Amino acid sequence: MKIEPIRWCGDRLELLDQRLLPDQTVHVTCRTAAEVAQAIRDMVVRGAPAIGCAAAFGVVLSKASPEAFQVLSKSRPTAVNLFWALERMKRAKDPEAEALAIFNEDLAANRAMGEHGAKLIPERARILTYCNTGALATSGHGTALGVIRTAVQERKQVSVIACETRPYLQGARLTAWECVQEGIPCTLVTDNMAGHLMSRGEVDLVIVGADRIAANGDVANKIGTYMLAVLARRHRLPFYVAAPLSTFDPMIADGAAIPIEERAAQEVTGYRGTRWAPQGVAVRNPAFDITPAELVTGIICERGAIPEPNRERIQALMSTGT
Amino acid sequence: MKIEPIRWCGDRLELLDQRLLPDQTVHVTCRTAAEVAQAIRDMVVRGAPAIGCAAAFGVVLSKASPEAFQVLSKSRPTAVNLFWALERMKRAKDPEAEALAIFNEDLAANRAMGEHGAKLIPERARILTYCNTGALATSGHGTALGVIRTAVQERKQVSVIACETRPYLQGARLTAWECVQEGIPCTLVTDNMAGHLMSRGEVDLVIVGADRIAANGDVANKIGTYMLAVLARRHRLPFYVAAPLSTFDPMIADGAAIPIEERAAQEVTGYRGTRWAPQGVAVRNPAFDITPAELVTGIICERGAIPEPNRERIQALMSTGT
Repeated sequence: MKIEPIRWCGDRLELLDQRLLPDQTVHVTCRTAAEVAQAIRDMVVRGAPAIGCAAAFGVVLSKASPEAFQVLSKSRPTAVNLFWALERMKRAKDPEAEALAIFNEDLAANRAMGEHGAKLIPERARILTYCNTGALATSGHGTALGVIRTAVQERKQVSVIACETRPYLQGARLTAWECVQEGIPCTLVTDNMAGHLMSRGEVDLVIVGADRIAANGDVANKIGTYMLAVLARRHRLPFYVAAPLSTFDPMIADGAAIPIEERAAQEVTGYRGTRWAPQGVAVRNPAFDITPAELVTGIICERGAIPEPNRERIQALMSTGT
Repeated sequence: MKIEPIRWCGDRLELLDQRLLPDQTVHVTCRTAAEVAQAIRDMVVRGAPAIGCAAAFGVVLSKASPEAFQVLSKSRPTAVNLFWALERMKRAKDPEAEALAIFNEDLAANRAMGEHGAKLIPERARILTYCNTGALATSGHGTALGVIRTAVQERKQVSVIACETRPYLQGARLTAWECVQEGIPCTLVTDNMAGHLMSRGEVDLVIVGADRIAANGDVANKIGTYMLAVLARRHRLPFYVAAPLSTFDPMIADGAAIPIEERAAQEVTGYRGTRWAPQGVAVRNPAFDITPAELVTGIICERGAIPEPNRERIQALMSTGT
């Protein structure tokens, strides 16, 4: 089964409702920018590159009106791909062609990242990954999971350890589902098991995606990423970040300036209709955290891998033409 | 409301069913050692000291028969308090009096730990804690949460950050509930948020319990404890372990030799009747991990605090009479 999170139908955008996976495969139809913005806010569609693509089509649906840009730019704050796509759409002469270009370029970037990244994956590697960074999080193929997918296509005998990724369970619901769909060996664990598995020598490397990368290489990604980077450093394991150039934000000097979305308490206190926390308890729900560049072994983007990322190396890579 | 996880009624043991908290307050009645063993296995009662107390009463219910010792010793493998209590019961002339002594001594140890530990808690401390180490995990009062409870009774203006503690959610279901019951300010977070909160300067210290402490000070505790210790070290935060002497295992040289229980996959793939992981995914579910002594700022027991625990300091403390 081909996984298609975003389907453009000319007069409407069909989004695979990721809130209902893996139980149900249902599409939500959006006919206006406001509907796309709502779908992004409600996490019908999620994943930094996928949000950017969806927003681009949202602009097309509302004929590039100022209101379309406004409502979409307010949908979610952390992933920079959204703002990057809206900027491109603002400058576009033909909005539909531009949205399709954003979509197709993302797919090409994922495949290129897959090839660059797979070179870093040893034969038989046991790869710990986080959140969902697969076809569902992008226009297809994926970023971090895309690298794993390419390694599998190259017949490397790798296996995946998928952290469930509380509170929204993107790892348990989406990454595990993508792996099962494609026959990629996958073991599901709770996030707090990563350190134990590393201490027992059961992890060879970590690879994650990103929602925004600052000019100095600090990485905003799903809450819990920072913990994995700290643990990987302690156990001298490679910690890779796979993200297309649309995730880089050269305007933000470092991670401290990246806005961190705080989401609803009910994501933490239970799951769907079931509540397990007592009434009356306070809740924090930051959706992202910052991993400092010094903990990142390398950033894999469509132009190659940036080892030990810093301001100079990132600038050099971004100023290279394609 | 007084929290009574274990109620001895002479001819039966009544256990507060912790699987149903915080929604329902139901007691399970045990009339044989086998029923107590089942209740321990099923986590009707959990928490290392509480398991030890329950097992002692289980021996009484089956008149200290060899079968009683056998079935109880096989209920759960990691918490040493169980084996410690069974050893005491084996040597006891009057089983009921011994079981009551174990119970009452645990309560006294908790209160003593509370007093020793509270001295280490600064005014207005924001204390991150893990799993449930409160009245529910012991004969009453608690170990790590007991220290917090004593600090609150001493009118220190502390607040608690409770990690939910996947997969079994003892933090979300039990610690948050105990805090709400007693009006202790408590914020619930997912386990993977601990690093982010530390990096933002929102945590002053970490305090956890233990299931078994090896001769060298390595600590087996709920899966995820190790991650917190590594993060606390990176952020130069105190990382305390509160545990009575019944949790110390001088027969085990270091953490590598402590057996780690692996529990059922369904604890990871969903919650009660709800499954969120796809069918066909493999699962790991180690219930505990090992925190090396070098990451522990101090172990708090009923005889005082052991700073920077090691073999010599632990041996010295254990050989001191009470």
